[in-house]
Amino acid sequence: MTTDTVRLPVPHAGQAPNTGRPVAPRRARLRPLPLTDVHITGGYWAELQRRNQSAILPHVEHWLERAGWLGNFDAARERRLPADRRGREFSDSEVYKALEAMAWELGRRPDPALQERFDAIVARIAAAQEPDGYLNTEFGRPGQGPRWSDLEWGHELYCIGFLIQAAVARARTGHPEDRLFEVARRAADLVCAVFGERGIASVDGHAEIESALVEFYRVTGEPRYLEQARLFVERRGHQVLKEVEFGREYFQDDLPVREAEVFRGHAVRALYFAAGAVDLADETDDDALHRAVARQWRRTVARRTYITGGMGSRHQDEAFAEDFVLPADRAYSETCAGVASVMLAWRLLLAEGDPVYADLIERTLFNVVSTSPSGDGRAFFYTNTLHRRELGSPPEPDRPSVRAAASLRAPWFEVSCCPTNVARTLASLTAYLATADDEGLQLHQYVSGTVSHHQVDGQELRVTVTTDYPYDGRIRVRIDNSADRPWSLSLRVPGWATQGASVTAGGHTRPAGPGVITERNVWQAGDEVVLHLPMTPRLVQPDPRIDAVRGCVAVERGPLVLALESVDVPGMLSVNELRVDVTQPPRVAADGRVMVRCHRVPAPDHDWPYSQDPDGHRPEQPVDLGDVPLVPYHAWANRGPSTMRVWLPTYGAHPQQPLGRQPRRSAVRRGALRVADGRADPDAAPVDRRLRA
Amino acid sequence: MTTDTVRLPVPHAGQAPNTGRPVAPRRARLRPLPLTDVHITGGYWAELQRRNQSAILPHVEHWLERAGWLGNFDAARERRLPADRRGREFSDSEVYKALEAMAWELGRRPDPALQERFDAIVARIAAAQEPDGYLNTEFGRPGQGPRWSDLEWGHELYCIGFLIQAAVARARTGHPEDRLFEVARRAADLVCAVFGERGIASVDGHAEIESALVEFYRVTGEPRYLEQARLFVERRGHQVLKEVEFGREYFQDDLPVREAEVFRGHAVRALYFAAGAVDLADETDDDALHRAVARQWRRTVARRTYITGGMGSRHQDEAFAEDFVLPADRAYSETCAGVASVMLAWRLLLAEGDPVYADLIERTLFNVVSTSPSGDGRAFFYTNTLHRRELGSPPEPDRPSVRAAASLRAPWFEVSCCPTNVARTLASLTAYLATADDEGLQLHQYVSGTVSHHQVDGQELRVTVTTDYPYDGRIRVRIDNSADRPWSLSLRVPGWATQGASVTAGGHTRPAGPGVITERNVWQAGDEVVLHLPMTPRLVQPDPRIDAVRGCVAVERGPLVLALESVDVPGMLSVNELRVDVTQPPRVAADGRVMVRCHRVPAPDHDWPYSQDPDGHRPEQPVDLGDVPLVPYHAWANRGPSTMRVWLPTYGAHPQQPLGRQPRRSAVRRGALRVADGRADPDAAPVDRRLRA
Repeated sequence: MTTDTVRLPVPHAGQAPNTGRPVAPRRARLRPLPLTDVHITGGYWAELQRRNQSAILPHVEHWLERAGWLGNFDAARERRLPADRRGREFSDSEVYKALEAMAWELGRRPDPALQERFDAIVARIAAAQEPDGYLNTEFGRPGQGPRWSDLEWGHELYCIGFLIQAAVARARTGHPEDRLFEVARRAADLVCAVFGERGIASVDGHAEIESALVEFYRVTGEPRYLEQARLFVERRGHQVLKEVEFGREYFQDDLPVREAEVFRGHAVRALYFAAGAVDLADETDDDALHRAVARQWRRTVARRTYITGGMGSRHQDEAFAEDFVLPADRAYSETCAGVASVMLAWRLLLAEGDPVYADLIERTLFNVVSTSPSGDGRAFFYTNTLHRRELGSPPEPDRPSVRAAASLRAPWFEVSCCPTNVARTLASLTAYLATADDEGLQLHQYVSGTVSHHQVDGQELRVTVTTDYPYDGRIRVRIDNSADRPWSLSLRVPGWATQGASVTAGGHTRPAGPGVITERNVWQAGDEVVLHLPMTPRLVQPDPRIDAVRGCVAVERGPLVLALESVDVPGMLSVNELRVDVTQPPRVAADGRVMVRCHRVPAPDHDWPYSQDPDGHRPEQPVDLGDVPLVPYHAWANRGPSTMRVWLPTYGAHPQQPLGRQPRRSAVRRGALRVADGRADPDAAPVDRRLRA
Repeated sequence: MTTDTVRLPVPHAGQAPNTGRPVAPRRARLRPLPLTDVHITGGYWAELQRRNQSAILPHVEHWLERAGWLGNFDAARERRLPADRRGREFSDSEVYKALEAMAWELGRRPDPALQERFDAIVARIAAAQEPDGYLNTEFGRPGQGPRWSDLEWGHELYCIGFLIQAAVARARTGHPEDRLFEVARRAADLVCAVFGERGIASVDGHAEIESALVEFYRVTGEPRYLEQARLFVERRGHQVLKEVEFGREYFQDDLPVREAEVFRGHAVRALYFAAGAVDLADETDDDALHRAVARQWRRTVARRTYITGGMGSRHQDEAFAEDFVLPADRAYSETCAGVASVMLAWRLLLAEGDPVYADLIERTLFNVVSTSPSGDGRAFFYTNTLHRRELGSPPEPDRPSVRAAASLRAPWFEVSCCPTNVARTLASLTAYLATADDEGLQLHQYVSGTVSHHQVDGQELRVTVTTDYPYDGRIRVRIDNSADRPWSLSLRVPGWATQGASVTAGGHTRPAGPGVITERNVWQAGDEVVLHLPMTPRLVQPDPRIDAVRGCVAVERGPLVLALESVDVPGMLSVNELRVDVTQPPRVAADGRVMVRCHRVPAPDHDWPYSQDPDGHRPEQPVDLGDVPLVPYHAWANRGPSTMRVWLPTYGAHPQQPLGRQPRRSAVRRGALRVADGRADPDAAPVDRRLRA
């Protein structure tokens, strides 16, 4: 084991390096900005950040303590393990993710009380570290599995990965000499010693440490961390892990990363791993590796991604399914996969500058990451289904839920990776909004606030953004501070804004299409550029290969995917029989809600749900429900138990059944579901039974 | 523990009671016939029974030995457990299910070699039984979990249930004093002592023993077995088992059986339990209990059953999903759930006489149970998906597969419940074909063969059935032996035969509809009744609430569900882009195959699979594939890797796109999937990208 002193790289002139960025690649088309250079002053994300700080983070701390996951570290120190071990094998990682969230919060704004809580947790963790740097409460003691004995499921390196990420956050927010940093360094050094070129030639079943080690290298400048990340990235895919029930693709050990065509297996593992591979590629000028991941991203986005940006459709193994297998019913779309997808797309955006990555980040932030926390920040979705058919039982308000069973958000989970992932993402959100390059500033996401950047020549560029986005499409960018030479202000026009976007600069308005608008000028303080994005609600149709939503449309407005919730239709509990009338475009009501014209088409009940009669599923007389309001998908399930659907059927069994047309048969069909009378007459031919049709 | 001698009930005059019937209720509307009273002489089921006897059973015996599951009993005897324990905790049950299959085979036809193998296995099992009757190779020894310590997952009572079932099969085929019977009796007595009124007030996580104990009561006449079954049935649903990840509905411990409205949770558990509850109800004249199960069956069939009869749509917990959540993609439809559904429907049919139960039995036998074994009887499907999108990797021919991952059938599984369940079902199949009552004979399923029955007055009724069903609709029933008084011959007209069925008797032909046709006559030997069932292929439409197959049709012919397999379309690997032209009805080709007119509608590839452009998913020029042959669903995947679908889309993204119409745009769409070039120009608005649309 090495005990070299960590040297931190010397800051560039005029720029505090490694400060406040969740990702800081050496080579990038676009440079990330430190958290401190971007301020959100109001609006959607300001509210979420406030909720994160005032509710989510305290809630997470409360549950980490209450569930005993923090106490595991005390038990380790006091040699009460494994007897007093609580939680799953990966519970240490939740503590580290919470620390990362706290570190970003502290980086944005000093908070002595929070600092005190942070330091207290770090002290408990540090006290549990073994003399050689090993740190894990589940392995390595008498009565526990030996260290590194269960790489497939043990999550030891995964946990250390998050420990390192927390330390990176700490270093990048001005605390490179933090005690946490030292704990992480000792653990990282142990990993390099144990898993190095001549060490255990394997990887962790759950990728995460790859990215963490590259980032640790970026912070410390120590090449051994980068080399260790390289070993982990290159080993995976060569069947170094044991076969498991879900196949080796579950942990991406089926194919080397350079050979794969698409993300597959466990979605969070696949996406964390891809992020690590991009980090490695960009740090080692490995274009082939970068291109391989980008290629997989494109195919995954084109064929394996929900309209919300959600990834992973299988419950069984929390995994990507085959291309176009994207059922709305029981969509898995794990919150953590949304977080991981943002991490990955951000890395690809920095490296390539292509706005498609920012498009997916926007979609995922608004429609997956935002969907997880409840309005009060004290309950979470682990999975994010796109179709809820039954009210189900609400989770008990004061008990951990199993991870994916809840119809409403749950306060905590037995596998509780999502709340801490939401917390660290929201805490560092300002880092994902804008970038800089030698030409100027690029705004990728729109929030009211300020963005500033010290150029290499020392000049500060600063703009103020004023907008009510995503509820309003007007985004006003005012130059507050400029340079004495021309520079470029780049604004992303989202991919969904195919019609009606425009930009006003220098008194001239011109139409704009999806992509990046770059205004280059010798800007003066007070100059303005205004982007107008179209906020007309849009009907969206799925690829016909997505069988599960054939004949349905979704409604989007701006970057928001909308949903229909049963609580908005008086007297309706089920959304199964709903039909949307696509001949009438969705409209925006006076109160700002998007309304769609709906009918309820009562499906006749039969004793067999398949009919050879072409009229067999002709609905009863449709009931005109009038205009029904939609809600942003991320806001659903905040008003009590409800059924919900994102994909709205436009017709029934046959496309030949337009809405509103009279059923051919008399109103009440024969064959309604009949309760057995116990003893039927075998001589009576029950022609009204569908099992019999 | 009781050591009472088992008294076998006295046979009725003129009838060997308890012989050859898988189920023998005391009270029933219809009486089951012993295996020996029904002979299959040729056709579809004769071939499957031959395959079972010549291939499936030897294959099962081979793998039970090879996998070490038989050897576990030797290891128990030789005190080598747990060191030498092989297989999952429930592996004992597979040995018992194989014995049950062998017992039925031996009951149908003496076979000294098979008898020798049977006896040898029984001897190995008997030698492993503990002095107090306990028998399980996974629990109870030093180094193993204590007996009954893991009722949720341990499967101890489940295993004993199958042991009892094998003993029942043995007793009912003329061997009530068999060594196996004695082994089972001792185990059953231990169960009664341990789980009786003053014993452990719980149940097994996997129901099965309930039905076994009622059957054991029927065979032995011992009321304690019935009472123990009653305790198990009544206890379940009162949260007697610990909460598990999938919720208590997983093992039906969420609601008392009398209160539930529908089957839910793990499908095989739910169906085994329901079968046991019906057995109990019918033996104790508990009409309320019977009605409760029948009500659940009806709702489950109406809302939670695949067109094949398959039950259970979730992979994660092998469970029923909510009403109408029946995705074709990754349909679970476990083979064992099909077997269990036949067991349950048979019990309901006997009790009520309603032909809807026989309809579901027919559908399930032809389209689920038959689908599992390969044409050579040496490989099996565990799950029976209705839509296979990718070829996948074929299972290794000489290795157990994980249970549900295979695109082709696998020789064996780590959880290998299905092959033995198929074997015992096929071995006892003749018992499910016909019944008798005081009025005469009832034919429920149609096979070439003979059915005879000695009436209570001692007179023998005997008929010969000649048919090529399910390939031909003509079923000729000839009276071979009659009584000197009028009696009724009842024939089921299947529920699917809504149009064109007819019956010819006494020289007169008249139309017939679904239900039961009863011909009452003073029959003479040589009299004939001929049933004509319509064999025109039928287009079948799903209930519009089954979102997953909206806009699709399936094709059925007779009792067979048909499927389209890619191997039948030269050059086509994917069935994703297939469209069936429903304006041209399916036709029967000269070679007997059913043909449908299909097009391939190449879906343009986009980098985002959702479009706000109404023409966004308009297909390229459809390719007329001409008439494409379908195969019986049960026969698919016998010609190498293939993709397959049962539900055939009739149109694309919009119902407004009829097949064959020219696409509005020029042939090649912009926006085909583009491989990233690594460094995109952020100023170029890529308007041809769909993530940007």
